[in-house]
Amino acid sequence: MSEYPPITEQLDDSESAREAGRRKMDWAAQHMPILESVREEFVANQPFAGERIAMAMHVEAKTAILVETLAEGGAEVAVTGCNPLSTHDDVSAALDAHESITSYAKRGVDDEEYYAAIEAVIAHEPTITVDDGMDLVAAIHEDYPELIDGIIGGAEETTTGVHRLRAMDADGALDYPVFAVNDTPMKRLFDNVHGTGESSLASIAMTTNLSWAGKNVVVAGYGYCGKGVAKKAAGQNANVIVTEVEPRRALEAHMEGYDVMPMAEAAEVGDVFLTTTGNRDVIVEEDFEKMDDGVLLANAGHFDIEIDLDALDDLAVDRYEARDGVEAYEMEDGRRLNVIAEGRLVNLAAPISLGHPVEVMDQSFGVQAACVRELVENGDAYAAGVHDVPDELDREIAEIKLEAEGVDFDSLTDTQRDYMDSWDHGT
Amino acid sequence: MSEYPPITEQLDDSESAREAGRRKMDWAAQHMPILESVREEFVANQPFAGERIAMAMHVEAKTAILVETLAEGGAEVAVTGCNPLSTHDDVSAALDAHESITSYAKRGVDDEEYYAAIEAVIAHEPTITVDDGMDLVAAIHEDYPELIDGIIGGAEETTTGVHRLRAMDADGALDYPVFAVNDTPMKRLFDNVHGTGESSLASIAMTTNLSWAGKNVVVAGYGYCGKGVAKKAAGQNANVIVTEVEPRRALEAHMEGYDVMPMAEAAEVGDVFLTTTGNRDVIVEEDFEKMDDGVLLANAGHFDIEIDLDALDDLAVDRYEARDGVEAYEMEDGRRLNVIAEGRLVNLAAPISLGHPVEVMDQSFGVQAACVRELVENGDAYAAGVHDVPDELDREIAEIKLEAEGVDFDSLTDTQRDYMDSWDHGT
Amino acid sequence: MSEYPPITEQLDDSESAREAGRRKMDWAAQHMPILESVREEFVANQPFAGERIAMAMHVEAKTAILVETLAEGGAEVAVTGCNPLSTHDDVSAALDAHESITSYAKRGVDDEEYYAAIEAVIAHEPTITVDDGMDLVAAIHEDYPELIDGIIGGAEETTTGVHRLRAMDADGALDYPVFAVNDTPMKRLFDNVHGTGESSLASIAMTTNLSWAGKNVVVAGYGYCGKGVAKKAAGQNANVIVTEVEPRRALEAHMEGYDVMPMAEAAEVGDVFLTTTGNRDVIVEEDFEKMDDGVLLANAGHFDIEIDLDALDDLAVDRYEARDGVEAYEMEDGRRLNVIAEGRLVNLAAPISLGHPVEVMDQSFGVQAACVRELVENGDAYAAGVHDVPDELDREIAEIKLEAEGVDFDSLTDTQRDYMDSWDHGT
Amino acid sequence: MSEYPPITEQLDDSESAREAGRRKMDWAAQHMPILESVREEFVANQPFAGERIAMAMHVEAKTAILVETLAEGGAEVAVTGCNPLSTHDDVSAALDAHESITSYAKRGVDDEEYYAAIEAVIAHEPTITVDDGMDLVAAIHEDYPELIDGIIGGAEETTTGVHRLRAMDADGALDYPVFAVNDTPMKRLFDNVHGTGESSLASIAMTTNLSWAGKNVVVAGYGYCGKGVAKKAAGQNANVIVTEVEPRRALEAHMEGYDVMPMAEAAEVGDVFLTTTGNRDVIVEEDFEKMDDGVLLANAGHFDIEIDLDALDDLAVDRYEARDGVEAYEMEDGRRLNVIAEGRLVNLAAPISLGHPVEVMDQSFGVQAACVRELVENGDAYAAGVHDVPDELDREIAEIKLEAEGVDFDSLTDTQRDYMDSWDHGT
Repeated sequence: MSEYPPITEQLDDSESAREAGRRKMDWAAQHMPILESVREEFVANQPFAGERIAMAMHVEAKTAILVETLAEGGAEVAVTGCNPLSTHDDVSAALDAHESITSYAKRGVDDEEYYAAIEAVIAHEPTITVDDGMDLVAAIHEDYPELIDGIIGGAEETTTGVHRLRAMDADGALDYPVFAVNDTPMKRLFDNVHGTGESSLASIAMTTNLSWAGKNVVVAGYGYCGKGVAKKAAGQNANVIVTEVEPRRALEAHMEGYDVMPMAEAAEVGDVFLTTTGNRDVIVEEDFEKMDDGVLLANAGHFDIEIDLDALDDLAVDRYEARDGVEAYEMEDGRRLNVIAEGRLVNLAAPISLGHPVEVMDQSFGVQAACVRELVENGDAYAAGVHDVPDELDREIAEIKLEAEGVDFDSLTDTQRDYMDSWDHGT
Repeated sequence: MSEYPPITEQLDDSESAREAGRRKMDWAAQHMPILESVREEFVANQPFAGERIAMAMHVEAKTAILVETLAEGGAEVAVTGCNPLSTHDDVSAALDAHESITSYAKRGVDDEEYYAAIEAVIAHEPTITVDDGMDLVAAIHEDYPELIDGIIGGAEETTTGVHRLRAMDADGALDYPVFAVNDTPMKRLFDNVHGTGESSLASIAMTTNLSWAGKNVVVAGYGYCGKGVAKKAAGQNANVIVTEVEPRRALEAHMEGYDVMPMAEAAEVGDVFLTTTGNRDVIVEEDFEKMDDGVLLANAGHFDIEIDLDALDDLAVDRYEARDGVEAYEMEDGRRLNVIAEGRLVNLAAPISLGHPVEVMDQSFGVQAACVRELVENGDAYAAGVHDVPDELDREIAEIKLEAEGVDFDSLTDTQRDYMDSWDHGT
Repeated sequence: MSEYPPITEQLDDSESAREAGRRKMDWAAQHMPILESVREEFVANQPFAGERIAMAMHVEAKTAILVETLAEGGAEVAVTGCNPLSTHDDVSAALDAHESITSYAKRGVDDEEYYAAIEAVIAHEPTITVDDGMDLVAAIHEDYPELIDGIIGGAEETTTGVHRLRAMDADGALDYPVFAVNDTPMKRLFDNVHGTGESSLASIAMTTNLSWAGKNVVVAGYGYCGKGVAKKAAGQNANVIVTEVEPRRALEAHMEGYDVMPMAEAAEVGDVFLTTTGNRDVIVEEDFEKMDDGVLLANAGHFDIEIDLDALDDLAVDRYEARDGVEAYEMEDGRRLNVIAEGRLVNLAAPISLGHPVEVMDQSFGVQAACVRELVENGDAYAAGVHDVPDELDREIAEIKLEAEGVDFDSLTDTQRDYMDSWDHGT
Repeated sequence: MSEYPPITEQLDDSESAREAGRRKMDWAAQHMPILESVREEFVANQPFAGERIAMAMHVEAKTAILVETLAEGGAEVAVTGCNPLSTHDDVSAALDAHESITSYAKRGVDDEEYYAAIEAVIAHEPTITVDDGMDLVAAIHEDYPELIDGIIGGAEETTTGVHRLRAMDADGALDYPVFAVNDTPMKRLFDNVHGTGESSLASIAMTTNLSWAGKNVVVAGYGYCGKGVAKKAAGQNANVIVTEVEPRRALEAHMEGYDVMPMAEAAEVGDVFLTTTGNRDVIVEEDFEKMDDGVLLANAGHFDIEIDLDALDDLAVDRYEARDGVEAYEMEDGRRLNVIAEGRLVNLAAPISLGHPVEVMDQSFGVQAACVRELVENGDAYAAGVHDVPDELDREIAEIKLEAEGVDFDSLTDTQRDYMDSWDHGT
């Protein structure tokens, strides 16, 4: 067992932290009807009795409800953060207080501590892994291959993580089954579009006290996250500019009524730049050189590599905190380029940020919970590699959500079902 | 060879029809930069020399440019309509005047003539079929199986057609390869969303002289067509209500901010009903009984089976033309339910209707043209069955379009491409 | 009495015209609940017994319901067109068949006939005038000042007309009271914004078969009409560009998220140009020189003076009908600039156009009818000059409309009314 | 002189507060180009030399720039808060450090201190008053009428304040001229619509961590603030419901596509309730009784009287802090109604709130500054009573803003100006 201590042992006053964390969790639980419904089922059936679940997630109130839901389904859970700045220590403490949960997540840890916490989680010898950025999968495959035999499978939350898992799978290097939770309709359409969109913009607005109306907002990438950011920014009366590398997406943005142009041109006219590509070096030196005084630079992708801050630092003659969560890089000609939350994913790392909205995470975590149950119930059916979430699971979560919202909808009649199955109908 | 005569032989003054048709085609060509670019390539390379292409399409100006583009690529083309009300006789005549094209399409034909025209097209012994509703594929498989050996493959334009082809394929009953043009990103995102959406609403507005602002517009089905109709109706300040049978789509509509409810409830509050499901009996007797006086009923799906007009007719005590293209069904209690274009697809069959906008069809037909070229060049590579359009073809058409629109976009740098391919990057 | 004959005497088959016109009017009446309610009141009370009402309006189905409503209130009505291209002869004939109505309106009259018809209307020696562009007020003041003593007052429908009346009033040259119907909330907010916006765009779409998605649509003028056009175009996924001369309006458009620029710049990037300013020479020679091949030019202002067609004609080397209602002006370098409906107001003069939507005109005409009643009941209270519509009349019409739509709303409680009247409440 | 001490004397460490406040002000100044431009003019011309300006405003970074701008124009300024919860003590301290400014504003004062601070400001014997809720005008008229002779005039920022001033004026009880800054186009269109809309929603989102997508958001009142909230909420994919008492506004909301209904009905379906009416008792006991568990209640009007919290408290069996800034009122049946920021104006009083966005306040304060200059330059021209802001001042600020944003726009040509002035143009 690793030497790295759980959060409770790291805090001065873990009891009051625990209470504050519990209050946050109570609020979240009040607005997570899917997990509430799933939890009732898990408590009754104890599907995870005997399992050990390792989790590396953004440890805040909403995720905590997922962690707790799995624990109450009978699992022993060990959890740590997946980003050094996104942990809420109080929530981490509240989780750690649960008899079946050990939490190692702590905000502001350095690189060494970050990986020590991951190792501490892995030391629980998990039978299931739940990742948000594939840190656990990567660490287990690289450093603890002996554990792989005991692992039924895993689930991965993010676009970026799934992308990397697929590359790993293509190389034949992924040795247990992992569900690509990110790729489900429920995740992409709601979490990415509504969650990332709303929370990124609200974080930026509340961190800067600036308005969207009439601003040129440059959205880099027009995947699901980019679409969400663009749509919500337009909905606040911004003038949206999209940059893309895939021609169909570029055309889609153009046909939506947005301006589409290369970043090198967008840099000259943008007021706010928001990256959502999952790729690196999306905004680079030549772009910084063209930007106006006072622009905002922020990232909504998983890693802090989309804005080339090293290049920006090289260009800067001065660098100072312009506002809590905003670092101004001053250029030789006096222009100030303001970087929000150090280019880390802004809806989690900005000082005024809460991650995704509660309801949106409820949907995403509902799918996670169903995937973990699927691994336990039918894990043998899945070979090593990346797997799409079975459509019935995703659909089940949608139905739970609609019921919770009081939204009624139609069902196919027998006649309609027959019609859909037939191909012999004439004009 | 069939006895059914080409359009030229059926018109009194085919010459003036031809001129009128040519003028319509010239306008369309002016706004179809993709086909213009493709045509230049085809004229130069003659990829279809020796091929016979059978087509069953809505014969109007835009489709005519596709027909001509294929003919100018070296093919002998025989064409007929895919809907008795959607043909423009003048355009049909203009096509028939081309030395490599025979057109049998005529507006207002009865059932017997309709199928005679299809047989006339098949009598040309096609090597390739291009369908908009799988009439040709169905007729060949049922009545002319002996032709199948000589057929390289086909392309199908519609959601409905592809759905039926897939069912046929699942039954092992599809004996040559067919490209599901409908399922490409280029088709779904632009044709279905923007084309169906804009043109259906404009047709209804100009057929009725009514406004969208403040109207309760019930959109049945939230697939790509339904999304387009809903989005464009909301963009005209309608209050959109969505009915759906698939829970994820129902939830998606709910999260977009629309009201979602069963048709049985929507019937009580709707002012306009627009079906886009591709299924039958979407609005039925119990719904008609609840509707307000003066409601509008229209269909944007391929077949005229979504609104149960037989049931409506049974309920009605009177039935009369309230306005060109609008039939009023008067109920016993005096309520008038107004059916537009006999429940046929409204953006083609209404008296004021022009089918999809030119630019949108340009994209869709660009993919069609590329698919036909692919069949000739690589037909051997495709087994009997439904095939997705190869992604490169779709992407190629998007690039041609963006270039024509003067929209520049980014490319991946080598560093970015490497990053996307790697999975070993840390936090 | 003038020699100019009523429409019935000018048509070959006035009877069938009358029937067709009546059918159009029946459809309109079905969707005009405000006039239906007002008409019931007028029929019962005969407020206009003994009055002679002169009207110069776009004579089509909706206006006809207003004309008939006034006639059924007891007035003798004489009516003519206010634009040589906007009359529907069949509706004019149906009106003329009414025993209390004489209609001189005819489509396609030349200048001489146009003014002869106005004189014929004036020859009825009106006691009230109802204008749509102040033709009657102008002609009476210039040529028949002796009639002014017998005139109780008038009502003017358009922005342009009111603008000119105010100038006339400022010069002390307006000798009887005229209600500025255009300036009421009911007219500006609904007719201008929703009516002009929706119908102009639908007319252009159905006249050209082109799409709005992704188009650069240049809206000249950001008054109520311009706002409507911009909002509805954005709602069809156009990329809207606004030109303005008033800085607050320019800023308002900018803050809405639209691009704002001078016409000289917009000319270089626009795909469609739509003028709504009420002013002249909004698009001029230097602009035409910069435009792309294939652009569309249309006008939604009252007069055909916003696009300088003389200058365009001088630049053109050829000019031909590209499509019904679209005239192509071909430049020396081959560019074709397409003018829709000769630059006349597009939602009335285009070949596929129906004027404002029925419901929107119902609101506007409800205010007209209330104004005419006010003149008869309280005409003495109004001095010569332009008058705002009394707020109670406008409010009354809104209440009638909401009741007809089944929309319930709140009333102030006594406590709230007291609070709104007090100023002594502390923090 | 009053005994109430300036903020500097009330803080333990006023120096570090001052620095923090200055940093906030520097960020604001960076995004307030209008005040920057105005300040340059004031510094050069010293228009306020010898004047004493009393201000009661929300004392935070943006307002502080206005205060400083006036001080640098030569005035002695005394300032206090206009709401016990909206002051930022650090900004207050930074202002107080300015040699020509005394600031009495302090967060969290009780009623007695609040009014003592107002008296302290009045004790400076102002020649000009600048109000945000007419506290100064009211206090001076009630308790210090002897000062009125020395007062040139005032300016009032809010809807509520202007409403009360007009009532006072109608009673003949307003004894010096006050500019109704709230009623200018610049204020209503930008501050109310964009400022209130964006900041209220962002505050609620960041205080609750909840999403807007798919929520039923009930907006009480459809004036400028209500329109802004409704538009921005719809832009975040909420399903907007509007309540109103004025039929034209109710109809306007209906025609925009929103649901309109009485609060008594909205209470049954709403998820979030946001009041913007400026009136009292907008949500009352019978409404609370119908609401769902978990609803949010917030206010964006000036005073905390729109939600009847006394009635809510009477209904509640328990009441506790559910989350920072959120108080849960628990009903007998277990339902929890969550009140945000004690029903005070949410974009200023919520724990995560920053008031209006910087750029929006820049416009509003630009008008304020121009009004104060107008009082000094032409105060004699204004009689006692409420005055509209002269149109040229408002227009001047719009021009300064457009120039700062780099937005160019058109000017009328001589021909156009002549045309607008003429009324003799024919059809």
